[in-house]
Amino acid sequence: MPSPPKVPIPTLERLATYMRMLVELSSNGSATISSAEVEVCTGVDASQFRKDLSYFGMFGKPGVGYDVASLQRKIARILRIDSPQPVVLIGAGNLGAALVGYPGMAEHNFEIRAVFDNNFAKIGRKLWDTEILDINDLESVNREIGARIAILAVPSSAAQEVAEHCVRAGMDLILNFAPTHIKMAANIFVRDVSFLQELAVLSFHAGPSDDHS
Amino acid sequence: MPSPPKVPIPTLERLATYMRMLVELSSNGSATISSAEVEVCTGVDASQFRKDLSYFGMFGKPGVGYDVASLQRKIARILRIDSPQPVVLIGAGNLGAALVGYPGMAEHNFEIRAVFDNNFAKIGRKLWDTEILDINDLESVNREIGARIAILAVPSSAAQEVAEHCVRAGMDLILNFAPTHIKMAANIFVRDVSFLQELAVLSFHAGPSDDHS
Repeated sequence: MPSPPKVPIPTLERLATYMRMLVELSSNGSATISSAEVEVCTGVDASQFRKDLSYFGMFGKPGVGYDVASLQRKIARILRIDSPQPVVLIGAGNLGAALVGYPGMAEHNFEIRAVFDNNFAKIGRKLWDTEILDINDLESVNREIGARIAILAVPSSAAQEVAEHCVRAGMDLILNFAPTHIKMAANIFVRDVSFLQELAVLSFHAGPSDDHS
Repeated sequence: MPSPPKVPIPTLERLATYMRMLVELSSNGSATISSAEVEVCTGVDASQFRKDLSYFGMFGKPGVGYDVASLQRKIARILRIDSPQPVVLIGAGNLGAALVGYPGMAEHNFEIRAVFDNNFAKIGRKLWDTEILDINDLESVNREIGARIAILAVPSSAAQEVAEHCVRAGMDLILNFAPTHIKMAANIFVRDVSFLQELAVLSFHAGPSDDHS
């Protein structure tokens, strides 16, 4: 089941939504699910679900639907969370704390293996169960961990420098929560999450029309 | 400049990115910007930028580019942040604290006017400068505020009930940070932000290829 070279980002996002549903279903002992049930569980159209899966050569059985365990295994492989995916978090502030405590990380095989900060008042203390480490030790610690994913929960003013530091420490997949554009070489994948963007999408819909369907 | 009935969500997301750039540019005193400069500032292709704006009938002047102040005014109007947009936050935990303290909210005319929680240990205390109110007062407080946007930073188990409460209090635009699907009537616009989804998109790219361009 080789991945197509270019998968649309919205498809990947929905795969994560299906994954969350499948994790729940398998903990409930469900064996199969139909695309109609997927629509009820996730809000994604049944036809969109079938289309997303067919992209990867996955099809349900007529009258039966999809095998939960098999689908979960396949999607986990596509998203490369069929084995634990180590993650490094930079920034032990409120957002960092929210991320470390975010529910479902472990069930999805994301392991925040280390938390770094540059604030001496925080270094050595704990964020939940994880000790906050000195950002200056990023390279040496990640030599042990081997994380490719870095989450940046740092101020905008620090984001570019911290991202470059992460790259020097061997990470090439960066989730950036700072509301600023990070400039990276083409071999580094940066994904920006901007709360202002999310709010703007909502706000746009505050029009006179009251039908958002 | 009437808005087209259906604007793609990615276009709206990029409008917010342009808005952030324009806020910065006008604070630096820049009068004009070319689409090539936009690409450098935001990472969005110059052609994509021109396409996004042409959607709303906005065009640059050949050899000059775009007028910063005028563009900022127009995008603010499209995103309905040309006047303050009141926002209500539910959930005074770590994520709630990160959102209240998120930089740029005020510059973008998003005003988190009230924070609610159901935890008596938190009610009456402050989250940054904002007093944490009792969720039971949501209706009466929002009668004063008139917010249409609610941010849900609550556990998954509470999200559906809290969302319904927000609707009863007059809100119809919901930004949901809980990793669960909220079922709402068609006249309510719900936008889910899932950190697992964001991580999954990154993780997918942890393939053998090292060119993410």
